[in-house]
Amino acid sequence: MTATNAGSRIVDGATRLYCIIGDPVAQTGSPRVFSERFRAAGRNAILVPFHVPDAAFEPTLRGIMALANLDGIIATVPYKARILQFADRILPTAQKVGAANALRREPDGQWTGDMFDGRGMVRAITATAGAVAGRNVMLIGAGGAGSAIACALADAGVGSITICEVDARKARMLAARLGVIAPSCALRIGPATTDGINLLVNASPVGMSPQDGLPAPLGELPPNVVVADVVLADETPLLRHARACGCATVRGREMMMSQVDEMLAFFGMASA
Amino acid sequence: MTATNAGSRIVDGATRLYCIIGDPVAQTGSPRVFSERFRAAGRNAILVPFHVPDAAFEPTLRGIMALANLDGIIATVPYKARILQFADRILPTAQKVGAANALRREPDGQWTGDMFDGRGMVRAITATAGAVAGRNVMLIGAGGAGSAIACALADAGVGSITICEVDARKARMLAARLGVIAPSCALRIGPATTDGINLLVNASPVGMSPQDGLPAPLGELPPNVVVADVVLADETPLLRHARACGCATVRGREMMMSQVDEMLAFFGMASA
Repeated sequence: MTATNAGSRIVDGATRLYCIIGDPVAQTGSPRVFSERFRAAGRNAILVPFHVPDAAFEPTLRGIMALANLDGIIATVPYKARILQFADRILPTAQKVGAANALRREPDGQWTGDMFDGRGMVRAITATAGAVAGRNVMLIGAGGAGSAIACALADAGVGSITICEVDARKARMLAARLGVIAPSCALRIGPATTDGINLLVNASPVGMSPQDGLPAPLGELPPNVVVADVVLADETPLLRHARACGCATVRGREMMMSQVDEMLAFFGMASA
Repeated sequence: MTATNAGSRIVDGATRLYCIIGDPVAQTGSPRVFSERFRAAGRNAILVPFHVPDAAFEPTLRGIMALANLDGIIATVPYKARILQFADRILPTAQKVGAANALRREPDGQWTGDMFDGRGMVRAITATAGAVAGRNVMLIGAGGAGSAIACALADAGVGSITICEVDARKARMLAARLGVIAPSCALRIGPATTDGINLLVNASPVGMSPQDGLPAPLGELPPNVVVADVVLADETPLLRHARACGCATVRGREMMMSQVDEMLAFFGMASA
């Protein structure tokens, strides 16, 4: 094929692929954001959405990871923990969290996994509400994203974390991880409350579906509570409620955008 | 995500996927051609290259066909025959040829296969050199594309077809097919020759690699021989040789372009 300038190209036979896997996947902003960054850098690469059905996760991952022009994978709900089994090497943050949201293919063909959600969310919260050190955190959801955020908040010196998670085993596993990495952070497992809390993070998928309500019965929120939501939507019932209560809010998109540079560096692209 | 106009969009989370599978795949023009057609029609869809390594063909196909947002597959070398096993329904042309170059997902989740190379090449030859009826054909290569082209040439009334193919079993299978569908077309299996020939078609992959020479020792070509090559390159040793001998030529790109409208219709897109 003849060469054209990068600006007019969508994709050609030599385009390198990255994908985001999720179920669902239509809500993700990564395809547009990363593809535009690749294009702006003159790199013939694109990030496409792969809707991987939950029931076919393992064979589908084996299939797509065999594609010789696939260089990287971003994982979103519900695959951040399950994708770890496909990583040959797991970098320290992902190891600490027990989940990954990015895998890259190394020159030797092996796959390396890392986790960027935690630092991404801490950066996004800090940009909106200042340093998180000393804050008392209510965390709803202890899956891959929740674990990553809890570990990053603990690393950043929050005073306490209360974990609300319907799966008691997940809650205990996260508490055990946090107990090791941040022994001075007070930990509780229990129902969602705003008593004594000044940072509330929804890391559950509640809010993704248009039928969803709040992720927990929260009542009136004190206006000093900063409310962050991992859900990728311009608006969620939680964020609407929080703003009505006068709280500062952080959207999932801000968490996502604040990790783009780190992920691009992980994927081998020098920062802009 | 906020809406943007189709012109500025590369891809987003809701983009529907089509792919072309091949090994190699970097030479294919389909990603650009189809993605631009989807974009021009305002359809949020893209066609991406999937480099499927030969050794991992079956598990990789099972994996990518499980992607819930993948709506269609184009197959190129060396997968046009092997992909048939993944079709739940095989349309008549593909059945006749024993190979397919396109699969689409039906609303019921089943996959339908069809073959467009044959009519595509006959249309491309006709556009360059007029009707093919009565011509005497030398066909090099009896794989998926070669079989499709031979069947379409026989349908279009060529007088004879000589098949040159290193794999004797493939040559005999194609001759058997042609004997059924076009009993009045004279068939031969043998080495490449230009004796009594006025249409030479290379349907082998020879010419894809920069190290390749001619697909067979052809010597000087009489200028009345029309020479067509399925290889997707702006130039191949065969086409260069043919032009040096004063022959009219048809490139693989012309075969590909002349089947785009039919393939888009197969993929459910009304013609422009």
